[in-house]
Parts: sequence; structure tokens; C-alpha cells
Amino acid sequence: MDSTQPLRSAAFPDRLLLGPGPSNVNPRVLEAMSQPLLGHLDPLFLDLLDDIQEALRPLFGTSNRFTLPLSATGSAGMETCLVNLLEPGQRVLVGVNGVFGGRMVEVATRAGAEVHSVKAAWGEPLDEQRTIDAIEQVKPDVVAFVHAETSTGVHQPVEAIAQAARKAGSFVVLDCVTSLSGLPVELDQWGVDAAYSGTQKCLSCPPGLSPISFSERALSRVRARSTPVQSWYLDVSLLDGYYGDDRVYHHTAPISALYGLAEALQQIQREGLGPRVLRHREAGDALVERLAPLGFSPLVAAAERLPMLTTLRLPESVQTQGEGALRRRLLDTHNIEVGGGLGELAGEVWRVGLMGENACLESVERLATALEIEMNKA
Amino acid sequence: MDSTQPLRSAAFPDRLLLGPGPSNVNPRVLEAMSQPLLGHLDPLFLDLLDDIQEALRPLFGTSNRFTLPLSATGSAGMETCLVNLLEPGQRVLVGVNGVFGGRMVEVATRAGAEVHSVKAAWGEPLDEQRTIDAIEQVKPDVVAFVHAETSTGVHQPVEAIAQAARKAGSFVVLDCVTSLSGLPVELDQWGVDAAYSGTQKCLSCPPGLSPISFSERALSRVRARSTPVQSWYLDVSLLDGYYGDDRVYHHTAPISALYGLAEALQQIQREGLGPRVLRHREAGDALVERLAPLGFSPLVAAAERLPMLTTLRLPESVQTQGEGALRRRLLDTHNIEVGGGLGELAGEVWRVGLMGENACLESVERLATALEIEMNKA
Repeated sequence: MDSTQPLRSAAFPDRLLLGPGPSNVNPRVLEAMSQPLLGHLDPLFLDLLDDIQEALRPLFGTSNRFTLPLSATGSAGMETCLVNLLEPGQRVLVGVNGVFGGRMVEVATRAGAEVHSVKAAWGEPLDEQRTIDAIEQVKPDVVAFVHAETSTGVHQPVEAIAQAARKAGSFVVLDCVTSLSGLPVELDQWGVDAAYSGTQKCLSCPPGLSPISFSERALSRVRARSTPVQSWYLDVSLLDGYYGDDRVYHHTAPISALYGLAEALQQIQREGLGPRVLRHREAGDALVERLAPLGFSPLVAAAERLPMLTTLRLPESVQTQGEGALRRRLLDTHNIEVGGGLGELAGEVWRVGLMGENACLESVERLATALEIEMNKA
Repeated sequence: MDSTQPLRSAAFPDRLLLGPGPSNVNPRVLEAMSQPLLGHLDPLFLDLLDDIQEALRPLFGTSNRFTLPLSATGSAGMETCLVNLLEPGQRVLVGVNGVFGGRMVEVATRAGAEVHSVKAAWGEPLDEQRTIDAIEQVKPDVVAFVHAETSTGVHQPVEAIAQAARKAGSFVVLDCVTSLSGLPVELDQWGVDAAYSGTQKCLSCPPGLSPISFSERALSRVRARSTPVQSWYLDVSLLDGYYGDDRVYHHTAPISALYGLAEALQQIQREGLGPRVLRHREAGDALVERLAPLGFSPLVAAAERLPMLTTLRLPESVQTQGEGALRRRLLDTHNIEVGGGLGELAGEVWRVGLMGENACLESVERLATALEIEMNKA
């Protein structure tokens, strides 16, 4: 870093972020983050924290008191749910049909759990009956799966699996990283005990925070543990000491990021959750329709497809020439970012995110136009 | 949260933050955070990450390749150092003379380590000879202690303890949360294997990131573990996959916070580390001198006192009337935040931080003037 040079970011281009996150952020959110700092125990800041917690609850479809923005990214939210609800030797059943289910297996293994999984092909949801059968067979302490699998673009129906899990006496953990505020999420109605999200997807905030929610039933389970939670930073009982009424210092909350989140949540309230969900659906449908003539076809069947993250099989010409070069031209020439495929889908698909601010026809049109230009060049 | 109301932060006052952190932030840092977002795998963003890593190394006094801003606060940095270097059943010796040494004991216990401690009274540094004797007796796998104990204001000399630990075959973990860029930190010269800090102290950034550094020796130890690191989010081998040359997706980096850190690091480079350390020393000395006539006396002896965080015994009149009321008047009437005492020092001391931007005579004078006004009222 040469101190005589201006900050590199001063010259950063204004990208259209149509990958799997981060999404673009409203200028008012960026502006909110540049407000002067308050202390993390300042009464005015604690009021703002209360506001944030209150505004998060309807997005999760919950009245859970313990609903708060964790001071780390969505992956830490996943770890928080699993390491609090699992004790060494306990059984967990994880639904695996993409990267993030696989990550849950890894995190639960490190928590010392006995990990079972129920699998589906990448691009397909978990089969409900097979999952319910596995729950009845394994009798897991925890059942964990992904609502919106960002690696494949699959929308997983939650309710039947969650109800079977509850009936079997299991706690239910749900990954809502990509679904929150872009799809209906109904933790209370579905019977989900713990859920986590990230700010950089449909909430249209910068990455860095993970909204999480635990039911009272889940908190009671944590309090009844016979072993301490392995992570001090992610221990929900300690977090509850700060975010709850006691306001006991635990760690220093990320003030500026929380200013941004408060503003983003206000924007969501102004729009209304129903219209916002509809906007994501319409944008996703328009994307598939608009790119079909260019040879891009959705990996996932219509009924199981996420609105905010679409996995598109690439035209053969693009696969042959190497998709990386085309993605790079979109970025360098058109300032548009799209995501590559992960794991077994690498090289065969793109992942196009239309999240939060970007869930609109204008994003679809900018991408389609840029693709038409670049594919005609090739 | 009432969606018809403007964002509460729009009306936030401009506080002078003289507590134990966060400190105030330069307007250019806030401005940098409001630059448009880039993706976390965007080549331009990866260049900025390289810049940040390069700029952090001289602050830590290290050439450690693995030096990076962790995507969580300083407490997560502590947990990262301990859970990577400790395996269940291994021995750790922790120096405890305040809250943060105590926190290390808690984190190491949760990592399954056999925890030993060497203690000193709050307000005093660890006794070097007693600590060295304990190292020779316990033969710990890890020795961990705090360079700048924020709960008491004590400056701990590092080198003799670190050398004894290295001689005994131990790995050395150092808490530099409050010292980084306000005191000389010389990891390589001292023989420290892993260290962590926070952005909201002398770096004058918003809270949310934890700069950490691991030596190659420490990374080799982590790679040779017989058990996986219990935390997936904090596993340094996985972090190395993203921050190193491979750029493998691990989690989504907090883009905006990193823009702010890059700007703050440039400001430190412009000032120079030597002048910056001196500025902290002068401000701390001036504070003690200026508040003495008002009846505030330092808890810590001059030779062992931190420059950036001063623990002051309160005048009897203030203790009698309850220190909380006076702190609240400073906040409400003068927009000045100072910190209360923690643990056994609660009610008896204040902790006054002069960190980063605030390490100047103007801060001292504003606090002293406000105190004169409020104490004359009483």
C-alpha cells in the first residue's frame, strides 16, 4: 500500500452485483453507515438495537424474543445454531443437496455430533417422504436443512419436514441466508427452533452481520446443556445478556454496520414484505424468460426454483469457450458481476442473483443486453 | 420501529468517545465505507485485501504472511488464536490480571484445554519471574496473556515471558486489542506466535473486524493437529484458503468495513507509527496531569500504565454520590462518553480511553472542562 496514493476504493467502479451476494445497497444504507459512532452501551444505540430486533422478527415470521443481528457473517450464524443446540455425541440429521448443506455437516462434525445426512441431487429439493422416514429412523436431536440453497437455486419446502422433526422430538435448524425478505419465512408457523441469515442477500446490506432467531424452546434446551457451548463468541446465553434486558458487555457490537441494517430494515418496512416477495418472484421469472433465447436454461424445475437466485445452464458455445472469460468480460466491460457454478456444477452453470435492490426488470435487461453484445462478439 | 419516522441514527449526536472503545473515527474512514460495494471475489477487491494485509504487518511488527482482518470483533480474534493452537487435553498457561485474561481462561476451557493460570492483582502487571517459573513448572503447550489489559489500564512487558515460553517449547498468544498502533508491537522480535486485535481502539475504525497474525510455526502446528479445529468459521487453514493465493470462497468478507479499515491504515501510514505511539503517550500523560487537581488519581503506577487507556480512581465525592450519575451527565449534557470500572473495580474507577483520533490534548481538555462544570454543580 503506497501511502502517497489515494485509497484504491475511491476509484472503484459502480458494479451491478448479480452474483450470489453481496447485492447492491441503497445509497441511504451507505449514508446511514457513515453517521458518527456511538458507544456500544450508549442508551441511544441500545434503542436502535431494540428497533433492529423488532424489525427482524416479522421477516423471520416469529415472535421469538431472541432475534438479533450476530456480529459476524452468515456462516457464523450457521455455526451459532449448530454449536448451541448440539452437544458432543448427539445425533443430527442434515439435508444435503448443495454446498451449504455440506457445510452444515462439516460444522456439526466439528461440534462432536453424530452426523447423519439425507441427500438429494444438486438442483433438486430434499424428498419430503425420504426425509421424514430418515427422521423417524435416526431420531435425531437436531434436524438441519437449507431453505434457499444458494449453490443450486433450489427452494426447499419447510413445513412438512419441520413438523415431522418436531413430532420426533427434534429441534429444527433452518438456513435462511438467501431467503430472508425475498421469500416468505414463517418460523413460528412452520415450527422452526433456530434460524440464521446474512445481510448481503435480499436485505441489501453490506455483508458482515448474521440475523439469527432462537425460540424459547431452543433457548431452554441451550440452558439445559450438560456441557458448555464450545464457542464463547457464539454462545447464545452470553449474547442474550447483551441483547436482552441486562445489557451486560459481551463483545463490542459493530456500530456502523448496524446503522446500515437499521436503514435497510426501514426500507423493507416501507415497501412491505408482501410486495417485496412478489418483486423477487417477478424478477426471477423475467430473468429465465429473457435469457432463454440466448441459450440459458434453468437447472431447477419451475416449481422448485428460487426467485432470487437462478442457476442457469450455459449455452454449449459458452461452455466450450470457457465460461470464466465471458464472466470476466461482463465484469470488466459492463461492470456486471454474476456467479460461477460451485462444486460439481462448476463450469456448467452460472448463478444469477436478483436480490434486494437488484430484484427488478432493469437488472435483467442490463444483463441480457450485455450478454447479447459479448456473445455476438465471440 | 415506526416506518414513518426517519432513521433514528439521522439524529444521533456527535459523541466524543473516551471510553474503552469504540473510539471516534476520521470522517474519511466513514466516507470510505460508503463507497459502492464490490463482490468478495472481485479482482479489485482482492487487491484491496492484499493492501490491507500488507499494511497490518508493520503494526504487528511481523513479516507473518498470515496477517489478516478476521470478519468478526476482537473477542472472536481471541477465540481464533486459542481454538486453533489448542487441542483437547493440551495445557495452556494464561496470565490473568483483569477481565480479558479471565476471558482467555473461559475460551481455553471451552476448547477442552487443561487450563493453568498465573495471576496478578488488578492494576498490576504479571510478575515476570513468577510467570517464568510457572512456565517451567507447567510446561504448557500454549502461553497466553494480554499486552494492554483494557479492564485495568496495565501495560504488560512481553519479551521476557515470550522468550521463556519459546524456550519451554510453548506457543505464545498475545492479546493486542488495545495496544495495536498505540504502543510498539513487535511479534517477530518478541517471539509471539499468534496475536489478535480489534479495529475500534487505536486504529480508529468502527468495531467489527479483528486483525490477527499467525507465524509460520503456528500455522505448521495447526496443520499438524490430530483433531479438527472446533470452529469452522475461525479455522485459520480455511481462512488461509481465501486470504492466501488460492482465493477459495470461505465466507463473504465484510466489504464496507474493509474499505474503512483500508482508509484508516493509510492514515496511520501517513502519520508514521513512531509519531502515533508518541502521540498516545503524550495524551495519556496529559490526562493524568490535568485531572489530578480534580481528585482523579491513576490506579496503575506510571511505569506500568497504558498510554491509551487510563484507569482513574474517582474522587471520594464522586464515589459517594454514585459515579453512574456523573457519567450520564457527561454523556447527556456534554456528549462525552467515558467507561465505568469492570468487575472488582466497578464503582471505584473510570476507564478513560484516548485512542487513535482521540489521543490528543483537545480530548483531555474537553473532558476536564466538562468535569469541572459538572463537579462544581454537585
